Amino acid sequence: MTRSPVDGVRVLAFDTFGTVTDWFTGISGAVRATIPGLDAGAFAREWRRRYGPILARVESGEIGWRRLDDLQTETLHEVADQFGVALTEAASTSLVRAWRTIPGWPDAAPGIRRLKGRFVVCALSNGTVALLTDMARHNGFDWDFVGGSDLWGHYKPARETYCGLAALFEVEPAEVMMVATHQGDLDAARSFGLRTAFVERPLEWGGEEKDDTGSADNDVHATDLCDLADQLGC
Amino acid sequence: MTRSPVDGVRVLAFDTFGTVTDWFTGISGAVRATIPGLDAGAFAREWRRRYGPILARVESGEIGWRRLDDLQTETLHEVADQFGVALTEAASTSLVRAWRTIPGWPDAAPGIRRLKGRFVVCALSNGTVALLTDMARHNGFDWDFVGGSDLWGHYKPARETYCGLAALFEVEPAEVMMVATHQGDLDAARSFGLRTAFVERPLEWGGEEKDDTGSADNDVHATDLCDLADQLGC
Repeated sequence: MTRSPVDGVRVLAFDTFGTVTDWFTGISGAVRATIPGLDAGAFAREWRRRYGPILARVESGEIGWRRLDDLQTETLHEVADQFGVALTEAASTSLVRAWRTIPGWPDAAPGIRRLKGRFVVCALSNGTVALLTDMARHNGFDWDFVGGSDLWGHYKPARETYCGLAALFEVEPAEVMMVATHQGDLDAARSFGLRTAFVERPLEWGGEEKDDTGSADNDVHATDLCDLADQLGC
Repeated sequence: MTRSPVDGVRVLAFDTFGTVTDWFTGISGAVRATIPGLDAGAFAREWRRRYGPILARVESGEIGWRRLDDLQTETLHEVADQFGVALTEAASTSLVRAWRTIPGWPDAAPGIRRLKGRFVVCALSNGTVALLTDMARHNGFDWDFVGGSDLWGHYKPARETYCGLAALFEVEPAEVMMVATHQGDLDAARSFGLRTAFVERPLEWGGEEKDDTGSADNDVHATDLCDLADQLGC
């Protein structure tokens, strides 16, 4: 008998932005409503492109710990400058808050609910607990636990986040499976001993081609969260 | 117009042992199944009486931070000695784990679900995240967030727990209402600026009279969580 890729897995840790929610639709919609007469999709993509680099500057120690909302406010102003837009304080606040109500992919809430029948299901995201709780309430995500970056004062792909979640649940890293649509997140998780499941989200960037399509190193490759539930026997 | 006791409240923080769950029934049942021929109710009460004092020793600095399970293991052995019982390792583990599956009061799961429609609902307990997650899954408690003591490395009534939860939710302490059947928990919460709701649990000690019946200082006094939902307009 071959070993199932989920033998011993007890906790599923989900990336949120892109994996369970459609940030492109949510953020481009918010930009369109807030700043008329702009290529809202291009603005949303550019904002999102600045996300990884500024988090990496926190983890490198170049800048001290700051909550995601504060980092997103900074990158929002950079993008506004790039697009030649003057943002009011109210518009800035509203756009940063829009990340709390981006829509879930249609399969996300029902998929999470099915997977919860067999596994402990947690968000493991660079958002804060407050942001992720708003997102969950807005979309009906029935998390057992909301793992926000402010619990650890670190951003993925830092070890503290992945191993911190395993420690909270009193399990070994190999008993946790990271679920994400970003290979970098999964590669980091695997390097710390977690299992990995890649979820396809071809429309993550709003139809612009996505080169992140999942490596053969992942334990599971799923087309969406309902497919993941099928593959994990839920 | 008079001010409602819940004006501005956004987050409800629930004590768990006694307030949402019936530890007496759960623990005395586990003792009865594990150690036959004993006054299981008396054993359960004695174990519970040793809970507050050992947590207080952690908060006083007399002993370093240890997870609740470890503290409960220590007090369990003290009670076993007192009752003249030799506990096996398996029996000890099983009894300590029994705190994870104590039954919810019948009104708890439906009450929490109703309250969630208007408020962010969180466990704020001296249990760990893993313990509280097991308890929630066992009883169908739909928490938005599980506030375990291991997130702060402190036990109630320490300030860090109450104010730590408010900080995570990016709200002022006055926007959080502590819900408990223990006046000491509520008095501490109020001293740090939280609102308070007392919940009657006359059977908490298994029919032995309970002198903790709630002070007039609380913002709300409820007979159970469905009554609380009624009073808070949910």
